[in-house]
Amino acid sequence: MGILKSVKPIDINRTYISDSFRNLQDEICTELEHCDGQGAFKEELWGRDEGGGGRTRILQNGNIIEKGGVNFSEVYGPLSDQIADGLKVSRGNDFFATGVSVIMHPISPMIPIIHMNVRYFEVSSGEKWFGGGIDLTPIYIDVNQTKQFHSNLKSICDRHHHSYYPAFKKWADDYFYIKHRNETRGVGGIFFDRLGSDDEITLEERFAFVEEIGKSFVPIYTSIINENRNLPYEDLEQTWQKVRRGRYVEFNLVYDKGTKFGLDSGGRIESIFMSLPPEVSWLYNYQPEPDSNEAITSSLLRKNIDWINF
Amino acid sequence: MGILKSVKPIDINRTYISDSFRNLQDEICTELEHCDGQGAFKEELWGRDEGGGGRTRILQNGNIIEKGGVNFSEVYGPLSDQIADGLKVSRGNDFFATGVSVIMHPISPMIPIIHMNVRYFEVSSGEKWFGGGIDLTPIYIDVNQTKQFHSNLKSICDRHHHSYYPAFKKWADDYFYIKHRNETRGVGGIFFDRLGSDDEITLEERFAFVEEIGKSFVPIYTSIINENRNLPYEDLEQTWQKVRRGRYVEFNLVYDKGTKFGLDSGGRIESIFMSLPPEVSWLYNYQPEPDSNEAITSSLLRKNIDWINF
Repeated sequence: MGILKSVKPIDINRTYISDSFRNLQDEICTELEHCDGQGAFKEELWGRDEGGGGRTRILQNGNIIEKGGVNFSEVYGPLSDQIADGLKVSRGNDFFATGVSVIMHPISPMIPIIHMNVRYFEVSSGEKWFGGGIDLTPIYIDVNQTKQFHSNLKSICDRHHHSYYPAFKKWADDYFYIKHRNETRGVGGIFFDRLGSDDEITLEERFAFVEEIGKSFVPIYTSIINENRNLPYEDLEQTWQKVRRGRYVEFNLVYDKGTKFGLDSGGRIESIFMSLPPEVSWLYNYQPEPDSNEAITSSLLRKNIDWINF
Repeated sequence: MGILKSVKPIDINRTYISDSFRNLQDEICTELEHCDGQGAFKEELWGRDEGGGGRTRILQNGNIIEKGGVNFSEVYGPLSDQIADGLKVSRGNDFFATGVSVIMHPISPMIPIIHMNVRYFEVSSGEKWFGGGIDLTPIYIDVNQTKQFHSNLKSICDRHHHSYYPAFKKWADDYFYIKHRNETRGVGGIFFDRLGSDDEITLEERFAFVEEIGKSFVPIYTSIINENRNLPYEDLEQTWQKVRRGRYVEFNLVYDKGTKFGLDSGGRIESIFMSLPPEVSWLYNYQPEPDSNEAITSSLLRKNIDWINF
């Protein structure tokens, strides 16, 4: 059935999952600092009155990373009616949610922005599910690198279920879409939500998949960084980077459900907005030169590109 | 009754109003170019398939203005059900809308961002109303200048109706509010919408008020520019300007109804986003030094300050 045979029969629960996510945060921060070679994450702990809190870790002005965040949170308490309705679960329950969220804005326009998220949600009435994904936002799309990125994601997905890659690749295309620009945020990746147990797949198997996605982040991103870190660039590339970052802001503030959820539920504003890029421009009616690298990238910001066979 | 006695008994209609708004756009552009001394507006004409269009005029990289727009539009056609419902008017009608919208992002952090809008809306079932306002977003709040700004608006309002300034000042405070930051966008001004005729005030009188607001923009803003154009600034002030511009973007993309209406109704994206500032930063957890000028400005970004008697 395409399901990994070697999944260990561990008894997962909220403590096990949040511990695993805490370790994932530690591992990602250590490895990214190593790759950056200069920057160091600064940690801020925060709590919420209703229950739980998080560890926000931010690296600014590194050698490679201009601004990046690796956030862990574990929050719980009564589920508000508004959020219960939004999630389509019954009112009057408690919830538990834990996750790791990563976003990296590199200095060089030749290194893509990346975003990764893994999360677990549980309602006291019994529903349990995972969500997450990885997606890449190059300033300049390198077709071979994008092909490799999608191939890596497909390999991971295929080890867990044959349906995952096609479904979650499409989900990412549809999700990371800037409707008012009729363009995608980047080259997509995978995105999934509400993966609970069903007849075919247990919650343990879901977790094994989510865990592998989390662990794949460092090797996937550091290999892209190392391939691109010495590529030269000039003013034009930096201007285009600021324009592309503007589109990233537009997506996050207008469409992103995580941002909206955070703002609506009174989340910690600096942790929510750590996703926003450091230096951004909105230039009136900026149009790339015909046939330029910028124009080529623009032409590839669309849904439903079969990157692996491109 | 506080109503200006000298209102001319002109018979206003959509043609008269849109001609007046076209002239207002011309006048504002001429005077701003004169004040800037270097920049020139570039015009783009656009049309919409369903009816009407506009004149977008943008000035970039002037002597004073880094990016500014003065837009005129006159659009009409069938009212979509979605928009009819949003406006709480009956479905199945045609609409007519015309307006001028101004936004200026100066180079110097010592010169405030300003926004002005006047608009007229008509539904074929009979409803007619005006909306508009002026509001100021200083990077550094100058209390005396803010007092003068509000006094000027109050004088104009008072010439038309004693209820206008208190009601529209409060409306601006409530409207230009960044809920997730618990701070106002700037020092407010006046904001009003759906001013139709009623027992006390005719549509002609409403128009006389709206026209005076439009005409007041140039003298109000050019006097602020001329007072502040030679003030010195350094890196700190420019960093703070980019942070404050980030808040401006957050307001426009998350809360502004005009932006949302434009995006939802498939408006011309570059005309809608001409309001976004040119160079912007999001720095993680940026905190002004205690007692600094930045901290003083932050402390004044709140609703319900009685600026005139401050």
